[in-house]
Amino acid sequence: MSVAREVESANAKYAASFNKGDLPLPPARKVAIVACMDARLDPARALGLEEGDAHVIRNAGGRATDALRSIVISQQLLGTREIIVLHHTDCGMLTFTDDVIRHKIRTDLKQNADHIAFLPFGDLRQSVLDDLAILKDSELVLNVPVTGYLYEVETGRIVKVE
Amino acid sequence: MSVAREVESANAKYAASFNKGDLPLPPARKVAIVACMDARLDPARALGLEEGDAHVIRNAGGRATDALRSIVISQQLLGTREIIVLHHTDCGMLTFTDDVIRHKIRTDLKQNADHIAFLPFGDLRQSVLDDLAILKDSELVLNVPVTGYLYEVETGRIVKVE
Repeated sequence: MSVAREVESANAKYAASFNKGDLPLPPARKVAIVACMDARLDPARALGLEEGDAHVIRNAGGRATDALRSIVISQQLLGTREIIVLHHTDCGMLTFTDDVIRHKIRTDLKQNADHIAFLPFGDLRQSVLDDLAILKDSELVLNVPVTGYLYEVETGRIVKVE
Repeated sequence: MSVAREVESANAKYAASFNKGDLPLPPARKVAIVACMDARLDPARALGLEEGDAHVIRNAGGRATDALRSIVISQQLLGTREIIVLHHTDCGMLTFTDDVIRHKIRTDLKQNADHIAFLPFGDLRQSVLDDLAILKDSELVLNVPVTGYLYEVETGRIVKVE
């Protein structure tokens, strides 16, 4: 069975007891979370977020540059005034370089992906510091509190990076 | 109190009963979800995903082009072989155009954002169809099952778009 069929079935149960149909569009807690797409990380459960609380932007690595379009929309149109960056231990982004994935794509897919910066990193803590700096320095991002964490997939804990 | 302090407190509770410290890096259900960042949408709860199940990529609108870097990494390095696209009713992306947000940025921030395509849309159903087509047509994306849904923020239900 495809996962699509499975999520349809799971959603029917979710909808059957759904009672949050009148939440407003702007996030109640006025925060945007920028997190990695990693399967082991559930930002809502790990950070105590309920439906309606926060924008959750996720991409490979939880990289700030890739989230910029979404952050500008979040701040300019939907009123968020705080940003949290969440990377994690054992991240896939530690396991390759642009050269490696571009070569794989050239070999396996017979395609050229040299125009894509895949944004891998070699140091977890530095990857958070880099993304905090990008957000603090961007002239398109408001001067709001920005906090960075590493989520430990081994323990479920977040550890502040500063 | 900042939201950062609040999530630290919530995370301490999550970590106290955490028992999923040995999950593997590749998603168990071999699926990548591309969803909107909207605060009212919790993909894990709404689709029945547990930690370890799926890559969850989220951005303003749940747009495919903005997710392409992450999808290529998900497929080429971490073995996902299905994609689910999830947009939703009452989306903020229905409320503006590139001209509107670029003008706001020029006026309020005194900055130029004409180089950013903010990817708003005028028709929800078409936005899902467009993103399914982008994924199916991209030569960097594998030929895998791709299914699109609209999540109803009013009811909690997902409705297939085809």
